[in-house]
Amino acid sequence: MEALKRKILAEGQAIGDEIVKVDSFLNHQIDAEFMYDMGAEFKRRFEGEAITKILTIEASGIAIAVCTAKFFGYPPVIFAKKDAPDHSDMDIYSASAKSFTKNITSHVRIAKKFLSCEDRVLIIDDFLAHGESALALCDLVRQAGGTVAGVGAVIEMEFNGGSARLAGSGYRVESLAVIERIEDGRIVFNPPL
Amino acid sequence: MEALKRKILAEGQAIGDEIVKVDSFLNHQIDAEFMYDMGAEFKRRFEGEAITKILTIEASGIAIAVCTAKFFGYPPVIFAKKDAPDHSDMDIYSASAKSFTKNITSHVRIAKKFLSCEDRVLIIDDFLAHGESALALCDLVRQAGGTVAGVGAVIEMEFNGGSARLAGSGYRVESLAVIERIEDGRIVFNPPL
Repeated sequence: MEALKRKILAEGQAIGDEIVKVDSFLNHQIDAEFMYDMGAEFKRRFEGEAITKILTIEASGIAIAVCTAKFFGYPPVIFAKKDAPDHSDMDIYSASAKSFTKNITSHVRIAKKFLSCEDRVLIIDDFLAHGESALALCDLVRQAGGTVAGVGAVIEMEFNGGSARLAGSGYRVESLAVIERIEDGRIVFNPPL
Repeated sequence: MEALKRKILAEGQAIGDEIVKVDSFLNHQIDAEFMYDMGAEFKRRFEGEAITKILTIEASGIAIAVCTAKFFGYPPVIFAKKDAPDHSDMDIYSASAKSFTKNITSHVRIAKKFLSCEDRVLIIDDFLAHGESALALCDLVRQAGGTVAGVGAVIEMEFNGGSARLAGSGYRVESLAVIERIEDGRIVFNPPL
């Protein structure tokens, strides 16, 4: 998605050779109008897929997931939680996901009542790096007996290998911008902008 | 907002006499279409206010904030973060907020660059109970020298006193559904449905 690549170059900040900070429009401040453009693009990529639920993970996945829902006829959006359960339902599916940037392992969970074996689920997230979060979300769908229709990521860090891991497990991945590498502070896309 | 009150009665679950669980449409599974109806209602309530930013707090405030932005001409949406800083900007405003349900104190923070003294900020959140989160968000705006145009909450727990605390500090509060009390498992609205 050319507009996204241009936005990443204009507003993003490469930190070292593994991290791109896009907190001006994606994961701290949110450009809601641009979220809709990206939601429309996810619809174009997954055209023809019958989606019954959109699944994401708190917190930065929520905005793009909700804006994407509009273009799929408003299926329910579920965001998996990462914090410890409080007064929530104990009847949950859970999976673990390691965060390489934060160097912690999170337990990702959803209430069982929100996923069933009849669901065809589109997984949407802001970043796809090592693929830990996306694989954990796929695992939640599998536990419910549902089907993962695909995984949509706003920004993919191709060099972290998450997309290849997901594809290797049979999941379809669509990333709106694929970063092949970061070289001397310069972001290189695949295909190039 | 009558539709919201009806939805709370139909899908919500009173737990004890202080908590209403609405995880089927607001804070775990999200009814995105209904979020837009609520966003439009916030616009009606704050009609005439010139809003330059919408501020919320992760995670459950994000969906309603992003959907509300549409009706205000897409001002930037900022979500304050609660977790410890990682590789984020160290240049932050921060404030503390106690969660009575979880019995922990969170440090709420935003990057300084996203708020300025010229901002007129609409604070949007899913729940208004004791008002700790909303007051912390107001404090962040104050630190930046900006103006709080108002506080919009989806569900207010009137008996927790947060709305009165905010009003006492001079902030305008608009709640889409006000729960006066929970009595023998029954949710009583003010005004009644």
